[in-house]
Amino acid sequence: MKLPVGFRYASSYAGIRKEKRDDLALILSERPASAAAIFTRNQVQAAPVKLARAHLRSSRGHARAILVNAGNANCATRTGDRVALSTCHAVARLLKVRPYEILPASTGVIGVELDPKLVTNALPRLFDRLSEIGFSDAARAITTTDRVPKMAFGEVPFRTGPVHIAGMTKGSGMIQPNMATTLGFVMTDADISPQLLKPMLAKAADRSYHRITVDGDTSTNDTLILLANGASGIKPNPKERLVFEEVLCWVMEDLAEKIARDGEGARRLIVVHVQGARDDEEAVRLARAIANSPLVKTAVAGCDANWGRILSAAGNAGVAFDPRKASIYLQRVPVCRNGVAAAYSERDLKRMMDAQECLIRFVLEGGGPGETRFWGCDLTEDYVKINASYRT
Amino acid sequence: MKLPVGFRYASSYAGIRKEKRDDLALILSERPASAAAIFTRNQVQAAPVKLARAHLRSSRGHARAILVNAGNANCATRTGDRVALSTCHAVARLLKVRPYEILPASTGVIGVELDPKLVTNALPRLFDRLSEIGFSDAARAITTTDRVPKMAFGEVPFRTGPVHIAGMTKGSGMIQPNMATTLGFVMTDADISPQLLKPMLAKAADRSYHRITVDGDTSTNDTLILLANGASGIKPNPKERLVFEEVLCWVMEDLAEKIARDGEGARRLIVVHVQGARDDEEAVRLARAIANSPLVKTAVAGCDANWGRILSAAGNAGVAFDPRKASIYLQRVPVCRNGVAAAYSERDLKRMMDAQECLIRFVLEGGGPGETRFWGCDLTEDYVKINASYRT
Repeated sequence: MKLPVGFRYASSYAGIRKEKRDDLALILSERPASAAAIFTRNQVQAAPVKLARAHLRSSRGHARAILVNAGNANCATRTGDRVALSTCHAVARLLKVRPYEILPASTGVIGVELDPKLVTNALPRLFDRLSEIGFSDAARAITTTDRVPKMAFGEVPFRTGPVHIAGMTKGSGMIQPNMATTLGFVMTDADISPQLLKPMLAKAADRSYHRITVDGDTSTNDTLILLANGASGIKPNPKERLVFEEVLCWVMEDLAEKIARDGEGARRLIVVHVQGARDDEEAVRLARAIANSPLVKTAVAGCDANWGRILSAAGNAGVAFDPRKASIYLQRVPVCRNGVAAAYSERDLKRMMDAQECLIRFVLEGGGPGETRFWGCDLTEDYVKINASYRT
Repeated sequence: MKLPVGFRYASSYAGIRKEKRDDLALILSERPASAAAIFTRNQVQAAPVKLARAHLRSSRGHARAILVNAGNANCATRTGDRVALSTCHAVARLLKVRPYEILPASTGVIGVELDPKLVTNALPRLFDRLSEIGFSDAARAITTTDRVPKMAFGEVPFRTGPVHIAGMTKGSGMIQPNMATTLGFVMTDADISPQLLKPMLAKAADRSYHRITVDGDTSTNDTLILLANGASGIKPNPKERLVFEEVLCWVMEDLAEKIARDGEGARRLIVVHVQGARDDEEAVRLARAIANSPLVKTAVAGCDANWGRILSAAGNAGVAFDPRKASIYLQRVPVCRNGVAAAYSERDLKRMMDAQECLIRFVLEGGGPGETRFWGCDLTEDYVKINASYRT
């Protein structure tokens, strides 16, 4: 898959995290790019979140670069605002652009002062390394407890030539549906104005990042940025934009699903498919309640077809429904029909559930048109192990 | 501590659960008792929940007995309603009272048919065993994955003589604040009308059962019943009722705290104390978000003073506050003052956190009068182990 043209990437170890692996990444657009972003809705917002939001306002939705660090959230510290600002300034000086054209993002531990010199000292090295193929290194540098770097790619073959989309993301813990945590950066060489880009990102996020959960926690640093630099020379017309939007959704769904699959300690991806809700919003609420239930998640971890917990979790979603209309399928096997047990072989199903993916379908029979897919993961002993000693 | 007079208790093994230990309990009042109850708000309600609610309506808030089984939730089954009804009828026949004077309650696995003969066959044995001192046996019989039976007692020394309160409860998994799961039965020999009893129970539950969480899941079977049989001959006057109400609160707080402390797999009780919220309701929302956060719960399991997670969890409570006014204390040690790290010794604090209780105090400096205490527990590998194989 070809990367979008006109972007360069680099990563380096700046000494921010203890473990000696790259913790600083730069994503650079060779020309000013249209930019749209979605940030955490947590009341507590990290300094880079506040600054990135301000920069996007100042630049009226344009950006030249994204500066990302892992290992320190730059949140709830005395110097956070200054650190975010001074490191953006340093990047801007080297690029000879305005500071507000730099968007900062951070992930890592909260409440520990971040020494800006660690970042600024590493910048020359970072700039030396900038290259088109630095994409996967940058994707690796932004991860924390992720087991794998997460990337997704798309291509839209317009009549006048192809346009490319490439995304990288980090996930693992503190993932929850309402702006699922994480850092996510999606680049495209399509020529799209900031005004058009913003609703596109919102729509795609609604179908992807807002439909995943790992542990129901929303971080203080959630940042999702979409850059469109137009370097392909192709400006999609209104009809083409719909196709572009669809491919953007696929790429972001791919990224979001990878986050759920690699949830902290997760052994299995859980795909919840809800049908028959009154509308999509109620479907999402039902799916989220199922995907977030620790009792459902542990049952999946144990390959236990405990559909009663799924029914009970749906009953806690704050959505009115008649339990006697609820049917549940596990790995496509009906386990509950109209609110009571269906005939199925526990033994066979247990074997089928011992797979990398667990498909939970929850149907309200004779219900409305509301439907959704939602991604989560099982809850294992490893989630506890990872999170009981994160800082040590 | 003396038990309230005029009640008898019994338990027996009816063969409902696989493990051979008592799974059926009867609580009997020798005279008709005033009764108040609170039930689960889950959309999916077990047959005994629906029937108990109907019985309380028919009897206008009176009851003679509570029939409880563990090992089967009698929920989401074909025959559930008939089973609940026929077993209540059988008890009523033996007691020579009306069926609606019997309140049923069940806990256990969902979606498995409950054979009513198991219950009715065990009834004669159960009646033979009825005694005043059967209280702790009954408390043990209603438990599932609880490690200990849970009881609490209170005495109100009125001028005309003492009134007694005794409660038993079961908890462990599927515990969450909005009508925290569980079965809870509280008996008193005070003479109080059903009309007065109902708001008393609601108020006490608000301060106890509604302020605990283990895993944020609300079960389909949550039932909390308060019986007042008047056998002490003492009818508290309005002033005395306030004292009685306070002692009732203590007893129920004691029960609720015992549930949190014995949460599935829990090693530590977490007590969240919120101060400075706009009102008590916002304080409860903040406390609940902190106590429910898997990242906070795992940090406590690992004795990790990761206050950033506490701040972040509070930020997800849906309560507006200024993070720069937030201070956090762990085991009474200030770890965060006005939104940034306080000076403290990580090593000392880690040692202090390795205790049976973890006290988290979250203060909004210069804030409002809103305050609450809230009980939760840490999240350990054992929670996952217990719940991954609950049915096997």
